[in-house]
Amino acid sequence: MDNRASGQHISHLFDEEMENIRHKVLTMGGLVQQQMEQAVTAFVTSDQSLAENILQQDEMVNSLEMEIDHDCIQVIAKRQPTAIDLRMLISVIKVITDLERIGDEAGRIAKMAIRLDATDYYHDQYHELNHLVEMVKGMLSGSLDAFARMDVDGVAKITRKDEKVDREYTSIIRQLITRMMEDPRNITRMLDILWTARALERIGDHACNVCEHVVYIVKGDDVRHLNQDELEYKINK
Amino acid sequence: MDNRASGQHISHLFDEEMENIRHKVLTMGGLVQQQMEQAVTAFVTSDQSLAENILQQDEMVNSLEMEIDHDCIQVIAKRQPTAIDLRMLISVIKVITDLERIGDEAGRIAKMAIRLDATDYYHDQYHELNHLVEMVKGMLSGSLDAFARMDVDGVAKITRKDEKVDREYTSIIRQLITRMMEDPRNITRMLDILWTARALERIGDHACNVCEHVVYIVKGDDVRHLNQDELEYKINK
Repeated sequence: MDNRASGQHISHLFDEEMENIRHKVLTMGGLVQQQMEQAVTAFVTSDQSLAENILQQDEMVNSLEMEIDHDCIQVIAKRQPTAIDLRMLISVIKVITDLERIGDEAGRIAKMAIRLDATDYYHDQYHELNHLVEMVKGMLSGSLDAFARMDVDGVAKITRKDEKVDREYTSIIRQLITRMMEDPRNITRMLDILWTARALERIGDHACNVCEHVVYIVKGDDVRHLNQDELEYKINK
Repeated sequence: MDNRASGQHISHLFDEEMENIRHKVLTMGGLVQQQMEQAVTAFVTSDQSLAENILQQDEMVNSLEMEIDHDCIQVIAKRQPTAIDLRMLISVIKVITDLERIGDEAGRIAKMAIRLDATDYYHDQYHELNHLVEMVKGMLSGSLDAFARMDVDGVAKITRKDEKVDREYTSIIRQLITRMMEDPRNITRMLDILWTARALERIGDHACNVCEHVVYIVKGDDVRHLNQDELEYKINK
């Protein structure tokens, strides 16, 4: 094999390794997205066996995180990538930390679903959360989509949604406190909703982090800790 | 300059860069440790100006995080380190994420301190938290110490403490719920304590993460998601 052929061979191998990592991140993303959606369903419908399933999936998410981490470090050590490839690998290491924590938050919701007494269930008891759930679902799928397509066009929309999520979260907490005060027998149930709202709000934050990592990969700009206007300026410049 | 001298020169520069990064991480660690301790003081004594200070420090923590991140990526791109040096750089990138989140949790506590009405203050009103605060402080300083000395000997003690923190946290939550039920006028104040307890418990988790990163740097073993026995086995082997 001459030098050029060997170079092409290595470059082909490298592309394969990067594609493999990207593929695993998307698998992990799909898993935690499913965990989150199922956790909300389990909580709302007091479905304890579904909740148990979610907790079992946690092991798969953890293994994937460790495997991807290991793959990235191997590629960095072996291929000594620079520029966008290095940014991609370093960012993947951070993205999977966020994904793993989304899985953890889903696990927290699932654990509450297990604690709930199924006989307590009545239709739409957690309607307070509906709007928040829909917004956070949208943010998570949007952020995974941005990563899959390495496309920053949708990012500003997602981070703007985070501001709405924060307002909705604050409003839910206020309603819950009022209801606790009205009837202290509501306290335990209201606290469960409160923890779930908190977990959802955190999942929204992690989805924003994923978006920021995508901007860093594509644009090379570190856009953490910026406000919405500064972020949009960096994306559009 | 002959090749060997040039090699020594580069190696000397590399050592300096690594030492510089290490030094900045410790500075950042010291800052978030201070933020955490001051946040608890501000909360317990309803000291609103101290709480404002903590929120201002947040910007310094964020800049340090971005600076260290950038330094690590530069060194990886330029020096193409392998083995323990690469593990160190990748782990630093993760350690500072945990430190930044500790700062965030301290900020959450500070924000509650600002919301509190100073005239409400009476001595030792948050005695429920004393024990938890002491344990988490110990975990955080222990984990920073482990990083500073790259020493895994104290790690098992810190992660064992996390189990105690979780039990203490659960017990605090139970007490708070009881007190809310006894007198609904307590609800808002009890919720503030509850959020603070939660923030402290999370800081304990982040301290454990820092410890796990230190084990990875020193031993090369990924010890995340292990139970206490498995972790101690890996450390002592």
